[in-house]
Amino acid sequence: MSKLVLAADIGGTNIRAAIIDKAGHIYDEKHVQAHLSHTKITEHDVIQILEDFFNTFIKNEPRIEAVGIGFPGFFMGHSGILASSPNLPNLKNFKLAHMLSNRIKLPVTAQNDALCAAVGELHFGAAKGQKNLLHITLGTGVGGGLVLNHTPYTGEAGMAMEFGHLRVSQDSSARLCGCGGYGCVEAYASASAVTSHYFDLSGIQLSSKDIYKKALQGEQHAINVLENAGHKLGMAIAEAVKLLDIHTVTISGGLIGAWSFLHPSIMQSLNHQLIPPMQHKIHVLASTLNDQAGLLGAAALTRLQ
Amino acid sequence: MSKLVLAADIGGTNIRAAIIDKAGHIYDEKHVQAHLSHTKITEHDVIQILEDFFNTFIKNEPRIEAVGIGFPGFFMGHSGILASSPNLPNLKNFKLAHMLSNRIKLPVTAQNDALCAAVGELHFGAAKGQKNLLHITLGTGVGGGLVLNHTPYTGEAGMAMEFGHLRVSQDSSARLCGCGGYGCVEAYASASAVTSHYFDLSGIQLSSKDIYKKALQGEQHAINVLENAGHKLGMAIAEAVKLLDIHTVTISGGLIGAWSFLHPSIMQSLNHQLIPPMQHKIHVLASTLNDQAGLLGAAALTRLQ
Repeated sequence: MSKLVLAADIGGTNIRAAIIDKAGHIYDEKHVQAHLSHTKITEHDVIQILEDFFNTFIKNEPRIEAVGIGFPGFFMGHSGILASSPNLPNLKNFKLAHMLSNRIKLPVTAQNDALCAAVGELHFGAAKGQKNLLHITLGTGVGGGLVLNHTPYTGEAGMAMEFGHLRVSQDSSARLCGCGGYGCVEAYASASAVTSHYFDLSGIQLSSKDIYKKALQGEQHAINVLENAGHKLGMAIAEAVKLLDIHTVTISGGLIGAWSFLHPSIMQSLNHQLIPPMQHKIHVLASTLNDQAGLLGAAALTRLQ
Repeated sequence: MSKLVLAADIGGTNIRAAIIDKAGHIYDEKHVQAHLSHTKITEHDVIQILEDFFNTFIKNEPRIEAVGIGFPGFFMGHSGILASSPNLPNLKNFKLAHMLSNRIKLPVTAQNDALCAAVGELHFGAAKGQKNLLHITLGTGVGGGLVLNHTPYTGEAGMAMEFGHLRVSQDSSARLCGCGGYGCVEAYASASAVTSHYFDLSGIQLSSKDIYKKALQGEQHAINVLENAGHKLGMAIAEAVKLLDIHTVTISGGLIGAWSFLHPSIMQSLNHQLIPPMQHKIHVLASTLNDQAGLLGAAALTRLQ
């Protein structure tokens, strides 16, 4: 009888979970609203919410043998301990995997959500068969995950791949980023940056999806904003490639709907910024899993560790 | 009887070698002139030159049990095969370690010279006891080596840590780099960049050592050039830290003679460029081994692999 994993992707207001088999098939996906980012929430509240939600799966499916969780925040290596989380400031050194495992009586793996997405893309998505991957998520912010030699890379304090804060502009017109700095790639290539940049040029507030529609119709501000996002992404990818000599990059998030504008701009600036022996060797691919990457990666991690 | 290693650090015109014990003591260091970068040199010429030189050690010291070589160029993982070398363009897919081992009848390890220096610094130098290290060499160019979880990191094509070509200026005044691009950190922080930047400001050609002397005397152009080198190094280190979350950085090369100007500038711009949770956690240390790091790292690598 085939063994199954329960995987969860946890956000500040929404928790998704599904049962996943070894081949990456997703069954019985459900979600629940939970305001985890409430300032007064405690570790025990989080554990209780997750236990209750996970039990709705576990009670009906005896073949679940492990639980994998993607969670926003900085984890200590592969310990399953959340050191801290920018959006959930109340949680510090939270033994998430250990505490939950004691309650649900199953092995639990927990890791940073963007790193889970990278693992998902490597095992089941656009980077299947690779051993090294730089994965970039374009959402409200720009995040990322790194897999080196099949191993998810966390850094010394779980803070690796602050890709969104690579600096791609140092001149006086550099755009302000949410981190307080100027010229971060996130200030150009996140979905919200695209919206605000388009507003600055046109005076019109549109979603990134509508900006893409305008660009397809030939509207010049929309084209400029998307091409500039791609250009800046290419610059940031080039910096990562110069350090890590990684040949496969995947990108996920709503903005990849505008791939026909993003990809040519990314490739042009990437190759322009690389030193000659590295040029034209890097594959930049749109995610094939998109918002399932995190769930699938969390499931894969339970089998890696 | 204590086992010994023969280690060599190979440049385009000069080969250094020494016998090294397990504790990192260096005995019997010798060098020989050899014009390896001559355009017509073949693999067999290189092997013959190394065999003859190494035999002058091996014949007198029967306790030598392995040979470790640091060589300028891109290696294929840990195979000891040189994929290519920018300064020795005649050598392609050169089975350096294997061919030499067949001749001298000892195990041979060969790896990129800057990566050897990183390993040396981690095992015997300023980063002793760490498991992760970003090592930067400030010479004619700016190079580097990366050790992650005690393992020397090579990248997919042996080209990892092209640190010198991280982009630290995108404005119209960005300085030209030897790679053909503008604004690389190498165009500000290599010994030759410091000399040429000082010449541009003052009209006077001085070595980096003499520029440091001028700076100590309070000469403003000299101070500016060194502080700018440190500022740009700090910016490039910040990019690497944001990707890799590494907390220990070592720097070697003649320019670290000017550490009293470099270090404060590095730390100021590094912390300014990092996102808040990473600030003030990174140690940037002057090499304690300097030009012995490569030999000691090449020796250490024979014991790692």
